Amino acid sequence: MDYFTEVKDVVTYEGPDSKNPLAYKWFNKDQVVAGKTMGETLRYAVAYWHTYKGSGADMFGVGTYDRPWDKGSSPLEIAAMTLDANFEFCQKLGVDYYCFHDRDIAPEGDTFAESCKNLDHVVALAEKKQNETGIKLLWGTACLFVHPRYACGAGTSSNLGVFATASSQIKHAMDATAQLGGENYVFWGGREGYDTLLNTNLKQELDSFASFLQMAVDYKKKIGFTGQFLIEPKPCEPTKHQYDHDSATVISFLREYDLIDHFKLNIEANHATLAGHTFEHELAIASNAGLLGSVDANRGDVMLGWDTDQFPTNLYDAVYAMMIIQKQGGLGSGGLNFDAKVRRASTDTVDLFHAHIGAMDTFARGLLIAQQIIDDGALDAEIADRYSSWDSELGKSILAGTCSFDELDAQVLSSGEPELRSGRQEYLENIVNTYI
Amino acid sequence: MDYFTEVKDVVTYEGPDSKNPLAYKWFNKDQVVAGKTMGETLRYAVAYWHTYKGSGADMFGVGTYDRPWDKGSSPLEIAAMTLDANFEFCQKLGVDYYCFHDRDIAPEGDTFAESCKNLDHVVALAEKKQNETGIKLLWGTACLFVHPRYACGAGTSSNLGVFATASSQIKHAMDATAQLGGENYVFWGGREGYDTLLNTNLKQELDSFASFLQMAVDYKKKIGFTGQFLIEPKPCEPTKHQYDHDSATVISFLREYDLIDHFKLNIEANHATLAGHTFEHELAIASNAGLLGSVDANRGDVMLGWDTDQFPTNLYDAVYAMMIIQKQGGLGSGGLNFDAKVRRASTDTVDLFHAHIGAMDTFARGLLIAQQIIDDGALDAEIADRYSSWDSELGKSILAGTCSFDELDAQVLSSGEPELRSGRQEYLENIVNTYI
Amino acid sequence: MDYFTEVKDVVTYEGPDSKNPLAYKWFNKDQVVAGKTMGETLRYAVAYWHTYKGSGADMFGVGTYDRPWDKGSSPLEIAAMTLDANFEFCQKLGVDYYCFHDRDIAPEGDTFAESCKNLDHVVALAEKKQNETGIKLLWGTACLFVHPRYACGAGTSSNLGVFATASSQIKHAMDATAQLGGENYVFWGGREGYDTLLNTNLKQELDSFASFLQMAVDYKKKIGFTGQFLIEPKPCEPTKHQYDHDSATVISFLREYDLIDHFKLNIEANHATLAGHTFEHELAIASNAGLLGSVDANRGDVMLGWDTDQFPTNLYDAVYAMMIIQKQGGLGSGGLNFDAKVRRASTDTVDLFHAHIGAMDTFARGLLIAQQIIDDGALDAEIADRYSSWDSELGKSILAGTCSFDELDAQVLSSGEPELRSGRQEYLENIVNTYI
Amino acid sequence: MDYFTEVKDVVTYEGPDSKNPLAYKWFNKDQVVAGKTMGETLRYAVAYWHTYKGSGADMFGVGTYDRPWDKGSSPLEIAAMTLDANFEFCQKLGVDYYCFHDRDIAPEGDTFAESCKNLDHVVALAEKKQNETGIKLLWGTACLFVHPRYACGAGTSSNLGVFATASSQIKHAMDATAQLGGENYVFWGGREGYDTLLNTNLKQELDSFASFLQMAVDYKKKIGFTGQFLIEPKPCEPTKHQYDHDSATVISFLREYDLIDHFKLNIEANHATLAGHTFEHELAIASNAGLLGSVDANRGDVMLGWDTDQFPTNLYDAVYAMMIIQKQGGLGSGGLNFDAKVRRASTDTVDLFHAHIGAMDTFARGLLIAQQIIDDGALDAEIADRYSSWDSELGKSILAGTCSFDELDAQVLSSGEPELRSGRQEYLENIVNTYI
Repeated sequence: MDYFTEVKDVVTYEGPDSKNPLAYKWFNKDQVVAGKTMGETLRYAVAYWHTYKGSGADMFGVGTYDRPWDKGSSPLEIAAMTLDANFEFCQKLGVDYYCFHDRDIAPEGDTFAESCKNLDHVVALAEKKQNETGIKLLWGTACLFVHPRYACGAGTSSNLGVFATASSQIKHAMDATAQLGGENYVFWGGREGYDTLLNTNLKQELDSFASFLQMAVDYKKKIGFTGQFLIEPKPCEPTKHQYDHDSATVISFLREYDLIDHFKLNIEANHATLAGHTFEHELAIASNAGLLGSVDANRGDVMLGWDTDQFPTNLYDAVYAMMIIQKQGGLGSGGLNFDAKVRRASTDTVDLFHAHIGAMDTFARGLLIAQQIIDDGALDAEIADRYSSWDSELGKSILAGTCSFDELDAQVLSSGEPELRSGRQEYLENIVNTYI
Repeated sequence: MDYFTEVKDVVTYEGPDSKNPLAYKWFNKDQVVAGKTMGETLRYAVAYWHTYKGSGADMFGVGTYDRPWDKGSSPLEIAAMTLDANFEFCQKLGVDYYCFHDRDIAPEGDTFAESCKNLDHVVALAEKKQNETGIKLLWGTACLFVHPRYACGAGTSSNLGVFATASSQIKHAMDATAQLGGENYVFWGGREGYDTLLNTNLKQELDSFASFLQMAVDYKKKIGFTGQFLIEPKPCEPTKHQYDHDSATVISFLREYDLIDHFKLNIEANHATLAGHTFEHELAIASNAGLLGSVDANRGDVMLGWDTDQFPTNLYDAVYAMMIIQKQGGLGSGGLNFDAKVRRASTDTVDLFHAHIGAMDTFARGLLIAQQIIDDGALDAEIADRYSSWDSELGKSILAGTCSFDELDAQVLSSGEPELRSGRQEYLENIVNTYI
Repeated sequence: MDYFTEVKDVVTYEGPDSKNPLAYKWFNKDQVVAGKTMGETLRYAVAYWHTYKGSGADMFGVGTYDRPWDKGSSPLEIAAMTLDANFEFCQKLGVDYYCFHDRDIAPEGDTFAESCKNLDHVVALAEKKQNETGIKLLWGTACLFVHPRYACGAGTSSNLGVFATASSQIKHAMDATAQLGGENYVFWGGREGYDTLLNTNLKQELDSFASFLQMAVDYKKKIGFTGQFLIEPKPCEPTKHQYDHDSATVISFLREYDLIDHFKLNIEANHATLAGHTFEHELAIASNAGLLGSVDANRGDVMLGWDTDQFPTNLYDAVYAMMIIQKQGGLGSGGLNFDAKVRRASTDTVDLFHAHIGAMDTFARGLLIAQQIIDDGALDAEIADRYSSWDSELGKSILAGTCSFDELDAQVLSSGEPELRSGRQEYLENIVNTYI
Repeated sequence: MDYFTEVKDVVTYEGPDSKNPLAYKWFNKDQVVAGKTMGETLRYAVAYWHTYKGSGADMFGVGTYDRPWDKGSSPLEIAAMTLDANFEFCQKLGVDYYCFHDRDIAPEGDTFAESCKNLDHVVALAEKKQNETGIKLLWGTACLFVHPRYACGAGTSSNLGVFATASSQIKHAMDATAQLGGENYVFWGGREGYDTLLNTNLKQELDSFASFLQMAVDYKKKIGFTGQFLIEPKPCEPTKHQYDHDSATVISFLREYDLIDHFKLNIEANHATLAGHTFEHELAIASNAGLLGSVDANRGDVMLGWDTDQFPTNLYDAVYAMMIIQKQGGLGSGGLNFDAKVRRASTDTVDLFHAHIGAMDTFARGLLIAQQIIDDGALDAEIADRYSSWDSELGKSILAGTCSFDELDAQVLSSGEPELRSGRQEYLENIVNTYI
């Protein structure tokens, strides 16, 4: 344990008045909120790809980080060192979970078969580390977007050989996730979309994607993997259009292909805003459908049009998110994965601590505020009152499908204009601010 | 017939070399393309609200147009004069269809009941004019967004009285559409959405909206109306979020509430771009689902974030649209409605002619180009070739659901990397340009 | 005084723990912060157009508000009643300032001359009310965008007659502002831009706009008006492109036409975001140029592409704004004008109180937080340290213009790579959150 | 000459009816348009970075292209092979110019000094190739954004050592450009901006950037380099905010620091749209200021928020661009540089030909159409007529600064409302379509 020398032992809770940048001000793991400890509710996870494999490269520049765990003499040695760094970091932060893509933890080999072997090798090491530390796998996934073969998609590829290779890769990634006791398995198909309709057979691609997911469902059953399947919507980038555009689109697809019982959604804040939605909107749509399974807790820059994957520090976002999560009774097997990267100029390893501590405090504080708002019932009472006319017999009959236009027409023509009431948006926004 | 004195008789086809701004250069109604006349394929419609009722007002200014048909002494007289203007304009343009909202053709009365009576009165006049001129109704709809009662939605209102009034209004609008032989009935719920989640019960609103549409389906059956029901997606404006966000979202909703057999989509170009999609994308998604029913042929300004509803003059948009439409065998009972308004500074009535002529020529030319591309098969052959590996036995078994990850894994590990081929986007874009 | 019966006397400060929605939790007018009372620093103003003249109309619907001050029997009587409402509202809120357009306070007449007369009439009434109440005019302006004559601009009109009329109108508005002791005069040229370059002579329009502003400067001198001239940038809406696009563009224009000594900027939050900038960015650019004169304190919806003009309730925005304002020593003669409107569904007059109270509390709290951050110097010390290499002799010589590429080249080739340090963005964001 | 075996000799003009994808349909180098050959007007250039050094990598995937000129055994050998590929490609295309960054043509060494030596080495080779082939350098530039040292800017770095290194690098790049007879030198400062204002001293950065450019001006004079200096605006990416945001912002900066006589602008289509402007707008603003020096002819995807750098195939864009360019009498020493990359899936070297041929044809056709519109005077006559009231004595006196508000007020009050006329946007858009 010596990759992160700036933190000797573990980051501890010191409370809101602390000026120590390497302490928690709000995240108090054992503090009970709404019957559960913060640790139980806020199932934080570290994202392997950004935190350890991120280099600081962007489209206009090479990597800027100089990580000690990268200084091995072979890809597999680097993989082992990186694994050590992960468990050290999670332990020092007091975070119980991590998430990975197959190619994050194990290097690509010269052939696909060798890549599979590399994965097996590293998974065995990870299993050992998990047992030693108690750190667990929130979810695993297959990286089906970096390799050139996936340039035009994996499960939606026009090329059957690519589709088959993706299927094989996902099988191995599911095996790895199962072996490591992963509590979920995520599908983010960054290239499952199109770049131009001029060369695209839309129907074929959607059909083959459904077959792809159905085979995953079948394979899950076969191997007895009990984790939750999650689909992560994103509208675009790297493709022009990704089929898993947003919550509504994914839900539509799952319904059409009769896959809806097997998947939930993993909502990412930055993907929501890229789709022109608020984070809150996407969470609400997913939750309303009973499909909010997990969260990629990051933040985008709404003035920029790409996935900036910043650490979440906005308190409003955290409050709105936690209200939805707490109202649906938590995230179940899901959690809050920090799919976020420190800025390219944040070159010190201690920046990784600042980033995670800030994010964890933001959501911990968001939880406290959200729960208080819920407990006080201020917003809920307002909503109940606003819709109270629907509690009438007539309202019930409409929703039950036993009313008709004729019936309503007769009633309307015999009565006057309905009385209107204010929507009170400003009042409600003020209410929220009194809790912050 | 004397509202549009700048055109004496009718606008005629003079061919591409004509310099006459009041003649068609490409729209040649009787010219046969792919077995149908242009008139049969390009079922153009004039939008009553923009063309006659538009005043040139915007959020920062009052009306700028001075229309002769507005100079009546009472609302009903103005309605009758406007009706005359409509039929004169359609006849002079050689357009066979118009579209309306109930409140476009007939004025709001002091009470809801009086509004209904006004509608009955004007519909009788319209019926007479239709019979005299042969001009037909492409679709009718109810305006459920202008009146203050609909500030928080109609079919999704938190207020049962508002919901009931909207139901009654839609009943009357369906009656009117049926009476006038409307070939479709459109639902655009501009305020069926939310402004803030702080005061919104999402589930209640979606449920009541489904009940609303189901009652419409029931009523359609009851009165024997045979037109097609159409839903028009739009992501926002006037609301922050409209439930009918885009094609995928509407399709999801229709599936969830088992309404999908009763509705098709009316795709508007400007609504597509507001949702972050190309016009072509929305058409392709709808068509792929077998649900592309009609088109609101306009154009937005992609640098601006609101519905500019400009007349469509971009040839590329028209070519891509007509490729999709022709490949699905036309729009059936639907058509191309110019849901577009002349700019606020385009204050002359002759500007209405320029606007429609330009739009009609653009789509006529788009049809000619699209059909030529289809007939030559250049793009289709490329696509067929690109996906040809899926024609194999393995490809078929995957799509038939009789393959498994294990099977594919075994095959992949025993064979090498799949051979990749270029996506050829630049080549294909050049192909399209050779047709323009 | 009986338009706003929901507030009997005045809204008072009750502190952060108050649950009274009609009390201030943070705005404590006499509380001293950084040597000035909150009242002196936070020169709040009520926007006449939104608060009293706003009807709730939008592009898809008519007005929804039913205001008692609108129930007069003539336009001039309504104007007088509205004036009373204004002074009652400001007094009850404890706000010292209001802002208006000429056509807000006085109605358009049948002719331009009559409009001028109406203005004179109402200004006399307003002067009396100001004297009675002590409420003052933060700024006045001319409405050069509602009347049809301004459809293609005022100071940039292609039509000389329109330009002349705008000149005359602005003269009268300046007279009115001077008569009422207005502390500033604002230019927002909503239609000073273009809708299409196809009909636009860009050079002519920019030249005539400069002449327009120069004549205003001359006239100001002539009448001895001592208020500050302010230009309010906005990128678009209602025009496709407004010449006063953003701070940088306005500054460029003022420099080019040698007007820069006569104008400062009035920065609006929602206009900033429409231009693709943060509110903070626009404030920083203006302040850095020594030109930040006043603020239109509202907020947009960054997911929507039009001017939503919502009341500012986001604490982060307020903190960042107040840091810039406090660092430049306040806004001088400027202030914080709530150019914001309650939502269309917020139909009660009490909603106007909620909206203003929430906004005033947000900026008061923003002031407290910002000043604490400044006083603690945490961010400033970090910045000073980051740039400290520039304090060297070499740094000074570069900035003084006495260094050359040759000199630097020689030095670089003889020394090694510069040592880099982290940008520490995550750390700094956490610092801000510890103050909120 | 054997890197591009798919084209044996050179791409030739075959005319609009040709179906040969590897022939020009519109670009006819010796054809005279408006007194100049197409070759003289359309000074096309190939962008070294995208065409030869582009790998197909994006933020979510590694390179996909397998280029024969990359298969050397050392960086310098690869550099020499790539140089050969460049001259072969330009010759086969019949393009007279190329553009480069210093680090495109010569590899980074282990030290900065070695990088300088590498550059010298390759420049000597390039000079020889230029002499042999007649292919010329349109512009050179220094890459001040890839190396980690430039993570926080070069000329705006907070780190004096980085600033000095950038100065040295630019000196060498200017030397190289001068040695190769480059006709321009471009400044694109991709990281000259900020990522967060929390760690930024805005004034210091702008001041040091001005010093940086002033030293470049001085050095240019010292070495007698006669090429044109060009600044290329871009609003963001990779930084959150780039100081050279758009044309107006750059012009403002150049005016403020008295640098305006020494620079013109290099306008890129995709940068325009990222800034929320049309390509045409940015060209018009630059041209209106007499500062349109060169063009990066590419295209963005307006539905996506990052720099897609696609090849320009949209005819409308080309027509509007060429109208502005022809009206200002061409681009002088500038040209049309294809700062565009083939898509990641366009993996064949022949795709590079398709891409350039399509782009060259698009602009050639754009030139023909634009010149015809100009020659016919249709749009110009309309504009002249629209502004004709300004030709009066009064109009002249206003623009000459000899008029006053009082004078105009007197005149307005004694005359009636000005007569308005239609803006005719739809008519004008139709006019353009008749030429396409």
